[in-house]
Amino acid sequence: MTDIRPHEISVPAPQPDDARLHFIGRIHTPWNDRKECPHQGKIDGPECRIEIFEPWVQALEGIEKFERVEVLYWLDKSRRDLVIQNPDHSEGTSGTFALRSPVRPNPIGTVIARLVSVEGANLIVRGLDCLNGTPLIDLKPDRCTFTPKTPPAS
Amino acid sequence: MTDIRPHEISVPAPQPDDARLHFIGRIHTPWNDRKECPHQGKIDGPECRIEIFEPWVQALEGIEKFERVEVLYWLDKSRRDLVIQNPDHSEGTSGTFALRSPVRPNPIGTVIARLVSVEGANLIVRGLDCLNGTPLIDLKPDRCTFTPKTPPAS
Repeated sequence: MTDIRPHEISVPAPQPDDARLHFIGRIHTPWNDRKECPHQGKIDGPECRIEIFEPWVQALEGIEKFERVEVLYWLDKSRRDLVIQNPDHSEGTSGTFALRSPVRPNPIGTVIARLVSVEGANLIVRGLDCLNGTPLIDLKPDRCTFTPKTPPAS
Repeated sequence: MTDIRPHEISVPAPQPDDARLHFIGRIHTPWNDRKECPHQGKIDGPECRIEIFEPWVQALEGIEKFERVEVLYWLDKSRRDLVIQNPDHSEGTSGTFALRSPVRPNPIGTVIARLVSVEGANLIVRGLDCLNGTPLIDLKPDRCTFTPKTPPAS
């Protein structure tokens, strides 16, 4: 758990048990330390690999038609009890919901990645900003590119 | 749990217990039945209200500076075991990860909403597409409008 910084405010957060997640894969990136991670992924950033676990590989069918995919992942190293944060890179404090910090009551990250290729149970993408080994929660076509690149075969 | 349609494929999904969520609020929309819900929210759609529960209200500080917020919610009425789906509105079947359907292994919805106003513990927004009463998981500034409308007071 990360330390609390000056002027940050934590709350007695309830035990989280309203819903349960199942990790569907794992994200492989070049970044093994939080200090190396970019603050926000760049669509021309390095290639990363998203590995899908069984029994979900079949659910990739058709994803290759999309140019961009939304990736949801679990920020498993983050504390969950801060309401006010004092980020290194900004002046002054902010509420947690006014930040895209990994520290939040439900530490879920979302990013739009560019889909380079699909290789069996693996997606090669650019644009990620998370640590190597981050658990994957979901993949969806980007809502901006909800219409596939090529029309589906009818 | 919704019925399975012709040509859909379900899998024996593992019990989800890799991570646990805590609902941080509730979303109030005009739609009480799934058939009434829009397939994708429109930024000029009806005003909806996002209610934040304690102890998280303080975490809204600064959110009023953003024009668009990303809303994550839990699709609590969805089955989680389909890998291939046969949506009503499309021709043919698709893998779950090639659809933005509410049916997915971790039924989390994401939407970009236009922030109309902040009234205490409530956000008034447009652009949602979920059922009335949907549990809220997270709020973040939209990554496209990550820079606030007005610079924060230093």
